[in-house]
Amino acid sequence: MTAIADVKIRHFTVPLDEVLVDAKHGAHTHFELVTATITTADGASGTGYTYTGGKGGRAIEAMLVHDLAPFLMGKDSKDVEALHDAMQWHVHYVARGGIASFAISAIDIALWDLRGKRLNQPLWQMAGGTDATCRAYRGGIDLNFPLPKLLESIQGYLDEGFNGVKIKIGQPDLADDIERIAAVRELIGPDVTFMVDANYAMSVDEAINAVHLMKPYDIYWFEEPTIPDDYLGFAKISETGMPIAMGENLHTEHEFGYAFAQSNLSHIQPDASNCGGITGWLRVAEMARVHGLPVSSHGMQELHVSLVSGQPNPGWIEVHSFPIDRYTTRPLVLENSRAAAPDTPGTGVTFAPEKLSPFDTTQGTRK
Amino acid sequence: MTAIADVKIRHFTVPLDEVLVDAKHGAHTHFELVTATITTADGASGTGYTYTGGKGGRAIEAMLVHDLAPFLMGKDSKDVEALHDAMQWHVHYVARGGIASFAISAIDIALWDLRGKRLNQPLWQMAGGTDATCRAYRGGIDLNFPLPKLLESIQGYLDEGFNGVKIKIGQPDLADDIERIAAVRELIGPDVTFMVDANYAMSVDEAINAVHLMKPYDIYWFEEPTIPDDYLGFAKISETGMPIAMGENLHTEHEFGYAFAQSNLSHIQPDASNCGGITGWLRVAEMARVHGLPVSSHGMQELHVSLVSGQPNPGWIEVHSFPIDRYTTRPLVLENSRAAAPDTPGTGVTFAPEKLSPFDTTQGTRK
Ligand SMILES: [Mg+2]
Ligand SMILES: [Mg+2]
Repeated sequence: MTAIADVKIRHFTVPLDEVLVDAKHGAHTHFELVTATITTADGASGTGYTYTGGKGGRAIEAMLVHDLAPFLMGKDSKDVEALHDAMQWHVHYVARGGIASFAISAIDIALWDLRGKRLNQPLWQMAGGTDATCRAYRGGIDLNFPLPKLLESIQGYLDEGFNGVKIKIGQPDLADDIERIAAVRELIGPDVTFMVDANYAMSVDEAINAVHLMKPYDIYWFEEPTIPDDYLGFAKISETGMPIAMGENLHTEHEFGYAFAQSNLSHIQPDASNCGGITGWLRVAEMARVHGLPVSSHGMQELHVSLVSGQPNPGWIEVHSFPIDRYTTRPLVLENSRAAAPDTPGTGVTFAPEKLSPFDTTQGTRK
Repeated sequence: MTAIADVKIRHFTVPLDEVLVDAKHGAHTHFELVTATITTADGASGTGYTYTGGKGGRAIEAMLVHDLAPFLMGKDSKDVEALHDAMQWHVHYVARGGIASFAISAIDIALWDLRGKRLNQPLWQMAGGTDATCRAYRGGIDLNFPLPKLLESIQGYLDEGFNGVKIKIGQPDLADDIERIAAVRELIGPDVTFMVDANYAMSVDEAINAVHLMKPYDIYWFEEPTIPDDYLGFAKISETGMPIAMGENLHTEHEFGYAFAQSNLSHIQPDASNCGGITGWLRVAEMARVHGLPVSSHGMQELHVSLVSGQPNPGWIEVHSFPIDRYTTRPLVLENSRAAAPDTPGTGVTFAPEKLSPFDTTQGTRK
């Protein structure tokens, strides 16, 4: 009996060690984690989750409690992909992206956790099985760090074993961005992979101008130079020859479809927490393969390590500044600068109650 | 002092007189109404609202209570357009449409209500002032009505004075749709305007096939033949010569921009409850004007009557089967088959507590 018998939703408000700033979302003081634990009639259980930068978590919690959990009760937990699509249609009028994509993601990941436990397979195998390790870079949310502190944090990443780093750009004065880029490249030397991320703070023309000034510093990719909705704008920026990346703000297969078709991206960065979970993420990975692109990821390193490792076209996982993995029984493992996927059946992401429960802010009650 | 001093959110679950079915959302037994009442430091107050077909209202309520209300406190209520844009950015990471668009809409409408009261102007004047009346059609949610009941409901609309009617299509067998279309046209005669709405139940090819069979019946527009995300699919269907309409499922200015640029629409139907309120709706109306299209509306007749009437390029308001206006002090007024906008300062939409409070299901509490 694999029928869904219970869906438990919890909301956590997890403080960050320090205030983190980027060009568009302002100051982050904490992140929100919303977990969904599904129990089936035979007593098996799986946990999925999503996260936010501090806004929207209550709405995600409410949609899970009031719309998705009741819809799922009694349905067969083995129908993972069919349930993914059915959830999209169930809330379609208030969805086509946004909060619904985050809520559906949490459920979908829980269903994959159940699937892996049932099949006795780790996620990297279910997700393609190509490898159990992948490249990993450390992504800072460091726009407001003074230059000495920025360099100190980058040195910290290198000391931890990373051979790829990313910084935020989008300072009021572009010259400051370039100064920081130059200083970081000087610190890390020529062999460390180096990305920049503007969090769509720039117009297309501003981004093109920035690209010309960044040219000497061997930038591996320029992430979200402009608003994610401007698919053709991304293509224009790509004409400079700079490899362009995006994906963390695309929530539906249609949006990814337009990005692949129109934006001339070099890298795609879907986030399983907001693109429909593992089902949604794997569909994007397949689109990337068809378009001849590697697939990378945004955030949630403890899960994406398995997804990226499994692909025939692996990119880089981002090791994000929201340390979700710190609250699990297995924080991310780095071996020879590569991230190693867990071999546990299921997603391999198990939250540690003693670490997470101090931040439990669950409000919704099941009706 | 026009600083925002209080934001009160309420959630209502309003039963429908009978179960209403369309091709994609299934059976509706009630609709959800979420209201936002903003009070300023000088004691003025304005009310806005949004609605759903029964799913997502709790998430909208939660985002209003936890994300938007705290953000608005102390801000100047006169900065309507700036606050609209600021709210979009405030929740952008979990937004770009979806639940956030509904929540922002409720706030924006409340700010326009305050603006109208402050300026002593009714909404039709603030929205352009071209006219105080507009064309109105009655939109049925009647996919499951047996043919005799369908015709009875259409006759009821004519008896109420409507000179435009719309039915749902998307029956399992297209022949049934055509039979119903033929019977309705025979009933209403040649002079009544007649639209059909598939709620994106068809593929592009199916829609094109349907168009050919609908040709004899003088269909004014074919609404949402296929999924709203398939902008180019709409254009393909339009090559048949059938006027195509959509808009109720587009939530962001970018989505409307793509629809205008790529879909070769003849009619656009923004809904101020889910496209960013009155500010969002007026921006779409302006895009429509630039593209040489009339602007119509979806749902919420008691508010859209003022918005459509005010435009230099007015289309038709839909008089929707969710009777929100029944719960206000002024249900929609029809004069010589035209809908008449209220002359009251503000939006002219005032909920009647004695009618609505029995359905109060407010759950969120302000933090
Ligand atoms: Mg980024
Ligand atoms: Mg419709």
